[in-house]
Amino acid sequence: MKKLHVGLGARSYPIFIGNGLLGGVDGLLPEKVGRHIAIISNQVVAPLYLSRLTEATAKSGRDCIALILPDGEATKSFETLNRIYEWLLSERCDRATTIVALGGGVIGDLAGFAAATYQRGLPFIQIPTTLLAQVDSSVGGKTGINHPLGKNMIGAFWQPILVVADTDTLMTLPDRELSAGIAEVIKYGLIRDLPFLEWLEKNMEQLVQRDPDALAYAIERSCRNKAGVVAADELEQAKEGGRALLNLGHTFGHAIEVGVGYGTWLHGEAVAAGTMMALELSRRLGWLEAGDVERVADLYRRARLPIKGPALGADRYLELMAHDKKVLAGRLRLVLLRALGQAVTWSDAPEREIRAAIEACCV
Amino acid sequence: MKKLHVGLGARSYPIFIGNGLLGGVDGLLPEKVGRHIAIISNQVVAPLYLSRLTEATAKSGRDCIALILPDGEATKSFETLNRIYEWLLSERCDRATTIVALGGGVIGDLAGFAAATYQRGLPFIQIPTTLLAQVDSSVGGKTGINHPLGKNMIGAFWQPILVVADTDTLMTLPDRELSAGIAEVIKYGLIRDLPFLEWLEKNMEQLVQRDPDALAYAIERSCRNKAGVVAADELEQAKEGGRALLNLGHTFGHAIEVGVGYGTWLHGEAVAAGTMMALELSRRLGWLEAGDVERVADLYRRARLPIKGPALGADRYLELMAHDKKVLAGRLRLVLLRALGQAVTWSDAPEREIRAAIEACCV
Repeated sequence: MKKLHVGLGARSYPIFIGNGLLGGVDGLLPEKVGRHIAIISNQVVAPLYLSRLTEATAKSGRDCIALILPDGEATKSFETLNRIYEWLLSERCDRATTIVALGGGVIGDLAGFAAATYQRGLPFIQIPTTLLAQVDSSVGGKTGINHPLGKNMIGAFWQPILVVADTDTLMTLPDRELSAGIAEVIKYGLIRDLPFLEWLEKNMEQLVQRDPDALAYAIERSCRNKAGVVAADELEQAKEGGRALLNLGHTFGHAIEVGVGYGTWLHGEAVAAGTMMALELSRRLGWLEAGDVERVADLYRRARLPIKGPALGADRYLELMAHDKKVLAGRLRLVLLRALGQAVTWSDAPEREIRAAIEACCV
Repeated sequence: MKKLHVGLGARSYPIFIGNGLLGGVDGLLPEKVGRHIAIISNQVVAPLYLSRLTEATAKSGRDCIALILPDGEATKSFETLNRIYEWLLSERCDRATTIVALGGGVIGDLAGFAAATYQRGLPFIQIPTTLLAQVDSSVGGKTGINHPLGKNMIGAFWQPILVVADTDTLMTLPDRELSAGIAEVIKYGLIRDLPFLEWLEKNMEQLVQRDPDALAYAIERSCRNKAGVVAADELEQAKEGGRALLNLGHTFGHAIEVGVGYGTWLHGEAVAAGTMMALELSRRLGWLEAGDVERVADLYRRARLPIKGPALGADRYLELMAHDKKVLAGRLRLVLLRALGQAVTWSDAPEREIRAAIEACCV
C-alpha cells in the first residue's frame, strides 16, 4: 500500500493506493468520520464492490445507508442531485453523516457536490473505482454537475477527507474506460513530467494489460503530479499556469464531448483527441517539432486512444469552446506545450492557427 | 461612514455602514472585481435602488447586467437558482464576473449560493437593503436555498469580498420588516453582549422610529458581534458554543416558519417567538429568573414583535424541530441562556420541559 499526502493546510488529506484496500477501509477512516455513513454508488459498481465496503465500515461500528444511481454521465444532473438531497433529508442525515462516493468520476463529482452543499457541507470520502477517477477526479476537490448548456458549469471546490484507490477495482473495468484513464495519466507526463512520459513509453503495454505494479506506479505518480499542482493553486486562481495546466486538451475535448452529445465519447477519449489539437497548435506556433507530435500520437495509439476528433467543422468547435468555463474574460485561453513536459496557458494563439489545428486533427 | 473588518484570513472582507453609500459604491470596490458585474435583485428593491448602483459601477468603467426576481421567500428555490444559472450562461459570464446581491436576505442567500456554485465560485458582493440582512445574513458567508422538505437545507459557506450597508435603504422598509430585523439585533445582546441589551432597552423607540444614528450604531455593533463569532468558528464546526450560538430562538423559530408555511411569519418574527420559548426553557432549567424572561418580552413588545408562537401543538413543534439542520447526530441541540448575555448550546434538556416551554409560549 502506498500513501500520499495532499497538502492543503486545514484541508489536507491522505490518498491510499494499492490492492485489497476496500475490505480494510475501516482501518483507514479518520477520526472525524461520525457514526453515520451515506454511500452513493451506481448500478454497475454497487453489485461488485458495495458489500465489501459496507462490511468493512460495519466492523468500525458505524451504520451505513446506500443510494444506487444509474450509471452514466446523464446521472450528473440537477434531477439526480435533487434525488440525493431528498434521500439525505428523508434519512434525516445531519452533520454527523459522512458521504462516501463509490464509483467513477460521475459518482465522485455528483456525491462530492451533494456533500459540499447539503446543510452547507458534510465530510466526504472518495473511493474511485475507475482509473480516470483514481488519477484525476478524486484528487483536487472539484465537484459538480452538468447543465444542459454546459458541462461541469455548476459545482464547488470541496476537498475529501480521505481517498482510497483500490487497484483491484480496475480489473473489472471495460477496456475503453481503462484507455480513457490512461489519457489523463499521459497528460501528467506531457504537462510537467518528461521522465514519467518516458516511463510510459517503456511501460504502455504493461498498463494496457493491467499489470498491478505498473498500474499502482502510474496512479501514484499521477496523483503526486496532480497533488503538486493543486496544492499550489487550490482554487484555480493563478493567472498564468497553475491548476489550469491540468486542462491540457480539455477545451478542445470539451467541444468534442458536447458536439457529439454527452456520453458518446468518453472524457479521456475526447481529451486524447483534444490534446492532439493542442499539440498541433503548439507545433504551428513553433514550440514543438513534428516528431514530438508524432511521438505522442504513437503513445495514444498504443493506449488504444483516438488521435482525431469528429468532423464538426472549426466553426462549431470554436463556438463550443467559447462556452467552456476555462475561457477567461471572453478570451480563448488554451493550454499548450512549450516542449514535451512543459505546459503553458496561452491566450494569444491566432484564430486561423487554432482553426488549422482543429481541421488537421479531425477525421 | 463606519468600516468594519471581518477577519477570516485569506477570506477577510470589509463591511461599510452609513448613509448615501450606494451612489459611491465605485469607490469601495476591491481591486479583484473584474470588468463584469452581474447584479441580482428583486421587483421591490430594483425600482428604488438599482439605477443608483448601476450608475455608480458605470463610473468605475465596468459593465453591468441585472436580473430582477420576484420578491419573497418562495424565490429562494431550486427553480430560481436554475434561472440564475441559465441567465449567467446565456450572458456568457465567466470567472471575470462578480456577482452582486442587491436586496434582503432572500436575494443575498440565493445570489450568494449561485456565486458559490457557478463555475465553482465567483467573487461576490453583498448590498443588503433590509435591517435583517444588514445585521445578520450579509455577515458570515452562509448562502443557500430552501428545499420543500426544509429551509436552508441546501447551501454553502461563501464569503463576500465586500459588504455595503446603506442605511438610506431602510427608510423604505415596511414596519413589519424593520421589526423583524430588530429581533436579530436583540439576539446579539441576549447571547453575548449584555451592555448592548441595556443600550437597546434605552434606545428601542429611536430604532423603531428609524433614527439614522441609532440604526447605524445598532448595525455596527450587531455586525461586530457577529463577525467576532464567525471569525472564531467560520464553518460552524465548534462542538460547543461557537457559531451555533447565533441560532438562539432559531430551532423553535424554524418550526414556526415551516409549521405555518414559509413566508407567513417573517423570519425575525419567528425568531422572537422562538427565543421566548428558549428563554422559558432556560427558566425551567433554573438558569433565568421570571423577571429576566419578562424583561425580554417587554423589549420585544416595544419592538412590535410577537412573543407567542402559533398553537401547532408540541408534537408538531418537536417533529419540525427534529428536521432542522442544527440538530446534531439526531439529538435536539438547543441554544439556551445561562444568563442574559450568556448563551450556551445544550443537548440535555428533558423532552417534557421542552414541551412545557413550547406550550407556555403558544397563543
